[in-house]
Formats: sequence, structure tokens, C-alpha cells
Amino acid sequence: MAAAELQPADTTAASGADLITISVDAMGGDRGPAAVVAGCARSAAKNPEIGFILHGPKSTLDPLVARRRQLTGRCEVRDVEGVVTMDAKPSYVMRHGKDTSMWSAIEAVRNHEAEVCVSCGNTGALMAVSMVRLRKLEGINRPAIACLWPSRNKNGFNIMLDVGADIRADEHDLLQYALMGTSYARNGLGIIRPRIGLLNVGTEEHKGRAELKVANDMIAAAAAAGEYDYVGFVEGGDIPSARVDVIVTDGFTGNIALKTGEGTATLIREFLKEAFKATPLSRIAALLALTSLRRLTTRIYSLRVNGGVFLGINGTVVKSYGSADATGIAAAIQLASDLSQSGFSQRLAARVASGSLPRNDDSELGAGDGNKK
Amino acid sequence: MAAAELQPADTTAASGADLITISVDAMGGDRGPAAVVAGCARSAAKNPEIGFILHGPKSTLDPLVARRRQLTGRCEVRDVEGVVTMDAKPSYVMRHGKDTSMWSAIEAVRNHEAEVCVSCGNTGALMAVSMVRLRKLEGINRPAIACLWPSRNKNGFNIMLDVGADIRADEHDLLQYALMGTSYARNGLGIIRPRIGLLNVGTEEHKGRAELKVANDMIAAAAAAGEYDYVGFVEGGDIPSARVDVIVTDGFTGNIALKTGEGTATLIREFLKEAFKATPLSRIAALLALTSLRRLTTRIYSLRVNGGVFLGINGTVVKSYGSADATGIAAAIQLASDLSQSGFSQRLAARVASGSLPRNDDSELGAGDGNKK
Repeated sequence: MAAAELQPADTTAASGADLITISVDAMGGDRGPAAVVAGCARSAAKNPEIGFILHGPKSTLDPLVARRRQLTGRCEVRDVEGVVTMDAKPSYVMRHGKDTSMWSAIEAVRNHEAEVCVSCGNTGALMAVSMVRLRKLEGINRPAIACLWPSRNKNGFNIMLDVGADIRADEHDLLQYALMGTSYARNGLGIIRPRIGLLNVGTEEHKGRAELKVANDMIAAAAAAGEYDYVGFVEGGDIPSARVDVIVTDGFTGNIALKTGEGTATLIREFLKEAFKATPLSRIAALLALTSLRRLTTRIYSLRVNGGVFLGINGTVVKSYGSADATGIAAAIQLASDLSQSGFSQRLAARVASGSLPRNDDSELGAGDGNKK
Repeated sequence: MAAAELQPADTTAASGADLITISVDAMGGDRGPAAVVAGCARSAAKNPEIGFILHGPKSTLDPLVARRRQLTGRCEVRDVEGVVTMDAKPSYVMRHGKDTSMWSAIEAVRNHEAEVCVSCGNTGALMAVSMVRLRKLEGINRPAIACLWPSRNKNGFNIMLDVGADIRADEHDLLQYALMGTSYARNGLGIIRPRIGLLNVGTEEHKGRAELKVANDMIAAAAAAGEYDYVGFVEGGDIPSARVDVIVTDGFTGNIALKTGEGTATLIREFLKEAFKATPLSRIAALLALTSLRRLTTRIYSLRVNGGVFLGINGTVVKSYGSADATGIAAAIQLASDLSQSGFSQRLAARVASGSLPRNDDSELGAGDGNKK
């Protein structure tokens, strides 16, 4: 099963030809559609196999697309007037958001016109629309958002979920997060046998909330069948560590950890800037170390550049950071394309369906073949 | 009331003379008693008004103290054999820890021999022993641990509580944290009218858990009487921001945020080191910017250097970081001494007693006068 999951999938032809089609919500990001189109162009230049469906007002998007040679013949613009703003209530968008670029972008995945949807808009609304239009995966109670966290691991990232799809999670949800995180680690990061940790306030088994102790036992018991290694409880300090590949937690805690990490990184980046402006010598030093410092800044910021992936719905939705620039959008599209090529959506569905049942290689592959839900 | 809280207290004479006596658990830190004694010596050199009671095996401590001129005549060693290890269960220490340096250090506060206790040992055990021997402050359901978080505010720090005394907190506890945090901000950081924020996954009022919405209303309603400004919900990214002075949260979330912040800071510090070793030019740059980089490292690490303060018990207990070196211990002692000089313990008790009742300057001061509980 593990090896099979890593092979290129043969089910991506659903949309015809060998092109991977990515449905992109061009509106709703803090930097506007120009940044989104620039990100698509950058991504198109690197990946000849990607095609796009761009959603937003045609009058705005057509001129932006026309300016990018890389997008010629590979980008369909779908005219939608409405935009979901960052402060829109998810429940409102769910009921009245039909004529928005976000809704239209999700709809293209629902209609099998695209494999993956990418948006840098309002997270809550994107999750709500995804749930309503794509529906939850059979067997999943609460879908989750998984983020990539810079780490000391070889590939440079750990996965954490849920970082904000739902503010609650009981022990059954946490077990499902472990299974979904395993699938994501395997298909997104190429880790055959991911190490799973459960976030808690201490690593001792007697610590933490009651539901965490139950989840601890359940995740440990399902490790063999789920083909992951369970390392037990991990603490906040372990999130970027090489002890673990996937950190499982509820969406409330995960969201606060993610934003605390981002906030700390931003603060230190400002301290760094001040330090290099402090004296004439330090200013010269900053010039000498310019390349290293730029690389450092990129690493610090990679927390924000990478997209969050919605797990547990029928279809793959990648949420890029609201203030993502062209680089950020291109990174999110790359992730979306990688996941699409690996047949992630079908494999995740199969993994969840098999749950913690005894290992059964055929069932995982079998369920993934044929129709894409 | 606010102004009165900032005046030097006239009740610190409880232990006799003008000396402030600090009870120090010399054992239990990761770096052993030598680091603790060095920290005391450093602190003694700066603060002629501080005296110490050191707890631990006399055979170990006497030679260490004898080597430090600054401690001559200002340091009593109290002979105790037992040490609470970092992995000891709090419940076990509570029942069987009588002959440990930690217990003895707390006991000195209970017996009014010292105003404040400082320890860098096992946090859970220290809280458990504090609760059993000093008892909870009247009216407090769950005591809290408050930490100082590096921030963009003028004084360089924000306060966050609870960071791990208890894994639960209902709306009443969160209101008490707001009141205790106000008192700490005023007496520890000199902020007359602190701005309080409640940690949540979004700043909109409709977001978050049910108990947070209730706490939001309660803390807002008590702001006038409590003489703080309530800024509403804040997110993880706001913890180091200048939007707020005190961040209120439950101990589970606070502990994970704190450790995530520390972990992120440590990771970036390693990235920084690598960046300056990357090329010959960057190595020269590192030499040129040595002073600035050292200052930067100190700022990054200030998250760990400063002590956590236990709030809501009868007496002040400062928990220094387990791996604190002499600088860290000295910083914790400084904080303990500042709090002691401001009559913090009595003032906090008065504030909690007055709760969210209408403003009453006399009651806060009145309760603080006379006997120290």
C-alpha cells in the first residue's frame, strides 16, 4: 500500500488529456487578482502539464492574463462578479455566495472540470462552501486543514492538522486526523511511514485532557493497520522538530499554535532588521551577508508561503495565505499539482474508508480507482 | 487605586529590617546548584537590599556560597537532602516531598521568613506544593502561571496567563485571570491601565468556543471596575504585539502557545547560525555584526530567561526556566524582588477580593495592610 501510494496515479486523466487542471479563485486575496495571475504564470512556466480555470470578473482578469505569455491557451477565464471578502461570515457565504469567484472555483472541482481548487480568500468561507458543495468524505465527521511547518526534518517541513477547520475535535476526530495526516505526508511529502505525534502540554501519559488520553490509546492501536509510527504525545516545542512528521491536534489549539509561530517569526524578523541597522559595522555586515539573510528570511517566512490543504472532503482544496504574493500563489499551485498527480484525493478517501481495519492493500487502491467523487 | 498600587509598599517589613528575603530552591534546575548560586551572587551584587535563604544539601551549597564574596552574611543555607526531579509526578511530591529543597523553599514563605520563593525545578510539582502549603487565595478557583513574552510594547514584554497551571478554565476563571493579570502588569511592569485581550481563533465576536463568548462579555463588563481596558479577542499573532499588554487564556492553550513560541525562536536561531556559516563572506559578516547578533540572541531568548509567576495563591512564587543559567536565575530573582517591593502579593489578594465590584480604593489597600497571609 505504502509503495503504491507513492507511484504516479493513473486516475488523473478524469479531466481529459494529460493536462492537470487547477481551478483558481482569482479574487479575495489581500493583494488582488494581479498577484494571483502572476503566481499562475510563474507556475505555468515551470510546469508545462498544468492548465488553469480562473474565476473572477472577466473585465478584470482578461487583460491580466493577456499580459502573460505563459498562460496563452492554457487558461480559461470564468466570468463571475461576486467576491467573498475577508470579513464575510461563512454561514452567510454558504447561503448567498453562489455568484462569487470562490463558489465558482469550488464548483469546477465538483463538476470534475478540475482536480484541485486553489484560493487565497476567507478560510472559513472556503471551508463552508467546500463542505456544502463537495460534501464531507464518507466516514469523516470533521474535515481538517493541514499546514506545512518549517522543521528540522530532511525535507524541511512537518505537517500539522487541524489548524482551524473546526474548533472542536473528540478522540474519534483526532484518530481520523492521524489517518488523513498520514495520507498527506505520504502523497504530499513522500514520507512512506510518517511518524505521528499528538499535541499535548506534556509528554507523560498521565498529562492532559481526558479526550487526549483516549485518543492517545486509539492512535497507538491503529498504528500498525494505518502504517504510521506513533511517537505519543508531543509538546509545542516539538512542532518544528525532527522527532515527528505529523502533529495531530484540535483546530482551536492548532490555529493558535500556527498563528503564534507566525507571530514569533515576524517579531524575530523585525529584531533581525533592527540588529543590522544598529551600527555602521552591522550595516556593512548586512551587505556582506545579503544572500544568506535573504535565504534566512525565506525560511522564516515559509510558514506563511505554503498553502493549507483541506482534508476530509470529496476533492482537494488548497488554501493559500491571504497576503500571499506571486511566489506564495505559485507554491500553493505547485502543492495542488503534486497532490493531484499523486491521486491524493482518491487515496485519502480509501485510507479513511479502511479506517483502522486490518491492513488491506487492495482495498486502498481499489477504492481509489475508477470514478473520482 | 491604580496610583496606590504603584507606590512602594510599606508592608514589606514583615521579615524584619529593610532586607527583602528571597527563598531560593537551589536544586532541581537542569544546570545544578552552581548555576543557582552564581545567579544569587549576581543578583546580590546589583541589589544590596536582597537577602537569601538557600535550600539544598549543606555539604553541596556551603562551598558554593563560600566562593561568592557578594553572598557573605546575606545568605542562609537550609540543609535539606531531597531533590524533586524533573519527571517526578506532582501528586507524588505533594504527598511525599516534605524533605525536598522545593518544599523547604515554599515553607519559608509560608512561615513569613521570606516574601517570595524562586525555583527552577519541576513546574507541576512546584505548583502542587504551593497549593498545598500556601493555599489558594480566597475567591480563586484556579491559580495561574503568568509568563512574560517579548513584544513590541515600550517595556519590551507582554504578559500571558495561564501558561500551564491548569489544563481547564471556565469563564469565571478567565475573568479572574484578567484581574490577576491586571495586578501583575501594574506591579510587575508598571502599566497603570493594562489592555487585556482574550485569546481566540479569530477576533470576530461570533467565533470561538461557547465559554469564550461568555468570558468575553464578563471581562468586558468588569473592565471599568477592574481599571483595565478590554480590547476583546486577540489571536496567536497578537501575543507579541503592541495591541495588548495581557493575554488571557486557559492553561492548555497558553502552554502550547508558549512552547510553540520557544520552539519557533530556537529554530530560527539555528537557521541564523547556519546562515552566517554559509559562505566566507557571511562568516566575515558575522564577525562584524557580533555585538548586534549577541543582542539579537538575547532578545530571542528572553522568552526563556524570564520567570513565570504563580498567581492566585497566598504568597509569590517565581518559576525560573528549568535550564536557566546564572543570568536566568538572576532575572527571576530580580522579578521576585520587584514584586516583593511593590507589595504585589497583598495587592493581588485585595484585587481578587474586590472582584468586579464597584471601584473601591480603600478596600484594595486595606486588605493588603497588616498581616501577610
